[in-house]
Amino acid sequence: MRSKYIVIEGLEGAGKTTARDVVVQTLKELGIGDLLFTREPGGTVLAEKLRSLVLDIQSTGDEKINVKAEVLMFYAARVQLVETVIKPALAKGQWVIGDRHDLSTQAYQGGGRGVDRQMLATLRDAVLGDFRPDLTLYLDVTPEVGLKRARARGELDRIEQESLNFFNRTRARYQELAAQDKTIYTIDATQSLEKVMSDLRDVITAWVKELGA
Amino acid sequence: MRSKYIVIEGLEGAGKTTARDVVVQTLKELGIGDLLFTREPGGTVLAEKLRSLVLDIQSTGDEKINVKAEVLMFYAARVQLVETVIKPALAKGQWVIGDRHDLSTQAYQGGGRGVDRQMLATLRDAVLGDFRPDLTLYLDVTPEVGLKRARARGELDRIEQESLNFFNRTRARYQELAAQDKTIYTIDATQSLEKVMSDLRDVITAWVKELGA
Repeated sequence: MRSKYIVIEGLEGAGKTTARDVVVQTLKELGIGDLLFTREPGGTVLAEKLRSLVLDIQSTGDEKINVKAEVLMFYAARVQLVETVIKPALAKGQWVIGDRHDLSTQAYQGGGRGVDRQMLATLRDAVLGDFRPDLTLYLDVTPEVGLKRARARGELDRIEQESLNFFNRTRARYQELAAQDKTIYTIDATQSLEKVMSDLRDVITAWVKELGA
Repeated sequence: MRSKYIVIEGLEGAGKTTARDVVVQTLKELGIGDLLFTREPGGTVLAEKLRSLVLDIQSTGDEKINVKAEVLMFYAARVQLVETVIKPALAKGQWVIGDRHDLSTQAYQGGGRGVDRQMLATLRDAVLGDFRPDLTLYLDVTPEVGLKRARARGELDRIEQESLNFFNRTRARYQELAAQDKTIYTIDATQSLEKVMSDLRDVITAWVKELGA
């Protein structure tokens, strides 16, 4: 079976880390063990430096970063990761498990921040061509549930201090895109942990079996 | 008269700095004195930091920057400059004189480095919309002449150490784009300094007079 790129998506506190553990365990049970993990934004020297640069400028307050410039830096980080890490791993036969990918930009920037959605789609197509995850697991939670969980872990970054409205717009865009794309599976992540884990196991198992069929 | 954005373009050693002085002097004689100067890539905190970041990664050799990532960083720097510096200056009634702008990316990356030209045009349109210089003065020199001048000044950066072939491809792309765009005026910069300066003066004077007509 050709190796695959599986991405886990969702709001802060949706349970992406737990989901990753379930994905890894389920794939292992299916005999797939050569995995590479990625996390966006990040994962390359360039991407980490771009991230520091944004935080650095924001913290000094010397200059407000234009939202289009920010989006372009996300794409610079993403294409560097795709071309230098993800594609070579897939070519070597590794499966790649990603914590966030392009759908985050479409949802957070296109939904939450109101960046022109056509521009985002144009950028994605121009930069990434037809490279897409083979499977995306979208963990759907309300911002209320997600933020409560994230706060309980002591995670309060820039995004998490922004308004519930922002996250509601982001979630709505996630849901809209998931409804349009058959490679995105929505998991109801407001359910009990056990139920979320068993849903994930079922989706992955069925998907992998179908691949091999 | 509404304020204008004039860009000076050309290979290293084409004489862009001298050309700027002529532009400034000629505009002053025409009664236009409230000017702002820009130089790309650069001109904002973000742009300068992006430039350092690229040089930094290149010098450590930790990671090779993907050419699309580099292009996206150029566009991040450019949109930051356009939105936070150039457009506000034009809105205040200042004329803006730019040392390089988007045409450099189209020529150096699209011509010299062979980056997909359709992708570059798509990025430009997606990011900058229909924002364009009102007038571009393209100083056309052979790489042999330009590089000889640049070397005489002791300027030998990364680009200047690359091959003559690279600069020949860049120049060919400049010429091709200039031929397609009526807002780009080509000046033969292999001529004597006096002739180049008088050609520049003639072009600017005629152009400004036509604006006011």
